[in-house]
Amino acid sequence: MKLIGVVDTTFARYDMGGAAVSELRSAGTGFRVLRRTVPGIKDLPVAAKKLITEERCDIVIALGMPGGKEIDRMCAHEASTGLIRAQLDTNTHIIEVFVHEDEAPDEKDLAALADRRSRAHALNAYRMLFRPKDLERLAGTGQRQGYADAGRLGE
Amino acid sequence: MKLIGVVDTTFARYDMGGAAVSELRSAGTGFRVLRRTVPGIKDLPVAAKKLITEERCDIVIALGMPGGKEIDRMCAHEASTGLIRAQLDTNTHIIEVFVHEDEAPDEKDLAALADRRSRAHALNAYRMLFRPKDLERLAGTGQRQGYADAGRLGE
Amino acid sequence: MKLIGVVDTTFARYDMGGAAVSELRSAGTGFRVLRRTVPGIKDLPVAAKKLITEERCDIVIALGMPGGKEIDRMCAHEASTGLIRAQLDTNTHIIEVFVHEDEAPDEKDLAALADRRSRAHALNAYRMLFRPKDLERLAGTGQRQGYADAGRLGE
Amino acid sequence: MKLIGVVDTTFARYDMGGAAVSELRSAGTGFRVLRRTVPGIKDLPVAAKKLITEERCDIVIALGMPGGKEIDRMCAHEASTGLIRAQLDTNTHIIEVFVHEDEAPDEKDLAALADRRSRAHALNAYRMLFRPKDLERLAGTGQRQGYADAGRLGE
Amino acid sequence: MKLIGVVDTTFARYDMGGAAVSELRSAGTGFRVLRRTVPGIKDLPVAAKKLITEERCDIVIALGMPGGKEIDRMCAHEASTGLIRAQLDTNTHIIEVFVHEDEAPDEKDLAALADRRSRAHALNAYRMLFRPKDLERLAGTGQRQGYADAGRLGE
Repeated sequence: MKLIGVVDTTFARYDMGGAAVSELRSAGTGFRVLRRTVPGIKDLPVAAKKLITEERCDIVIALGMPGGKEIDRMCAHEASTGLIRAQLDTNTHIIEVFVHEDEAPDEKDLAALADRRSRAHALNAYRMLFRPKDLERLAGTGQRQGYADAGRLGE
Repeated sequence: MKLIGVVDTTFARYDMGGAAVSELRSAGTGFRVLRRTVPGIKDLPVAAKKLITEERCDIVIALGMPGGKEIDRMCAHEASTGLIRAQLDTNTHIIEVFVHEDEAPDEKDLAALADRRSRAHALNAYRMLFRPKDLERLAGTGQRQGYADAGRLGE
Repeated sequence: MKLIGVVDTTFARYDMGGAAVSELRSAGTGFRVLRRTVPGIKDLPVAAKKLITEERCDIVIALGMPGGKEIDRMCAHEASTGLIRAQLDTNTHIIEVFVHEDEAPDEKDLAALADRRSRAHALNAYRMLFRPKDLERLAGTGQRQGYADAGRLGE
Repeated sequence: MKLIGVVDTTFARYDMGGAAVSELRSAGTGFRVLRRTVPGIKDLPVAAKKLITEERCDIVIALGMPGGKEIDRMCAHEASTGLIRAQLDTNTHIIEVFVHEDEAPDEKDLAALADRRSRAHALNAYRMLFRPKDLERLAGTGQRQGYADAGRLGE
Repeated sequence: MKLIGVVDTTFARYDMGGAAVSELRSAGTGFRVLRRTVPGIKDLPVAAKKLITEERCDIVIALGMPGGKEIDRMCAHEASTGLIRAQLDTNTHIIEVFVHEDEAPDEKDLAALADRRSRAHALNAYRMLFRPKDLERLAGTGQRQGYADAGRLGE
């Protein structure tokens, strides 16, 4: 039985963690989910690391929704840097799922994007854990999460 | 008995540490507070780490007020990066509370914002330590600290 | 028998990992190749580190195709920083091969660039492992990967 | 007997280390000073770390004068990031004293600023080592180093 | 007998490593030089670290010539950050010698600058290893590498 950690924020304006858990449930079996919530994206790195080192998660999905201002982009950069460092510290993948508040023209589209991206990355996490060969078959095919796939160049 | 560290700066123009301690006192019991003050925000990461490793704090609140110039934003970025690293080094949460000097139109509003944000994050620290389920119930609800909550998308 | 790791992404729009493996095969013998695929470039650092620490690779080639927007450049920066850190953590070279989506005027040229750069860096990885003196002879000669070499200054 | 490290650069155009040592001498007793000089600010992090780990300094003052161009600001950013990391590696404070070459309108004012800031931060280092309560009393009072203090908001 | 590492790149358009070695030879005796060449500046950090940890170098000179575009500046930033980290990991100085391709108006001047800066920093490395007091005497005197010294402020 594998353990998948899901950590999201109270700052996000959509239940991204819930969407990820829902997608995981329909992706397959053989795992349990452990969920945590922190205030903001800068709190994600250590929360994800604790899920790995203290709770023995085999992979973690870290979800957040940075604001649309310059300073928010810097916060997202700091959080991403920390998430990569947490992975290197633990030799364990943490799938980052960030949706920037200015990525969609209105709230409805933003919610839909957050839902799709959270689900697409939850599926990626599932594949990394249970079906790595599925990812290898998709190498270089322009996969996107939340938008339509870009596809191979020239196709 | 838990131990909560509070570290702030002489550079800040508002007693953010005092506001955080005051809020903690009214949030509940079961903890003691250990307070430190350093010159500026770049001194916060190691001060917070020492509160954890040398003083055995279970969580730390790190408060500062970066100036409003480009170079101050870079200082804040460096401090934030260090605070995330200190968390990963110790597997312990450090709640960052930064109020940028140019976030409010005048000194009075800035002081009020600094007070509200310090208190809101002190409450977050309390919840992380004693009531993590409260945070999970707020996942994806657009919580803000110092401003009105943004709420869920489309609501 | 040496072990060369090759890790690429499903996000890329060209089979950069395949091009690298193909070039390695024609460069020489004395090694086996281990291939992995992850969703995006931010997943490369820990994937490369795992190839080194868990699979005993002697060198890793990490390939990706960041998008052309400002936020994609930041992702590439975070991935690069992580790849350098993974190298320092393991005392092992990881050859980064990034092709930015806006580096070429159209899809056909971009595919050709991705192919050439992947192959040129695969050759570099081979040289680092088997023929380091070849690199020393090329010191300061303005080698480029994917474009024509720049050559020595003034020549 | 405490040990205070002072490290500065040959790049700086003012004897900032000398000013810091002079101020330390008049601040009090109970310590010895160990001084080092490196070429530029990027050499400061490891020099400061060596003063702590190899020479047993209890605190270090790291002084430099970055140039006024964009690339110099990036150098300062890299040096600052390294100084924070050196602190976290050693659980020891390193007080950074940087004066940017474009912070003053002419050379005379820049020299005066460099002198004042070096002295003010030397005093901070002394306080951190011997009189931490003095800093706590100054929490949130808008202290500045080299310029007039900003004071509390609204006062 | 001390050991000085020299690592440069095939990307650079001038034999900076050769210039550094030549200058070291005329600076004095009491050391051997170990030289390595890597493809680009992002490969320098781990190469320098390996020279220290695997080859027992007492100091390393890392030389490179970043291109003149925005993305090249980011590469240089990533390399510099890695070089500082490699120093902190090993408690050993690594002297970074970067010449940006857009620092000189034409190829001839750029080659001359690369030569002078490589030599000036090679001399710095020699001083750090054998004559640290020489550097202390130059503290705050506005030394430059490759350009005329800036001198003390007001002189």
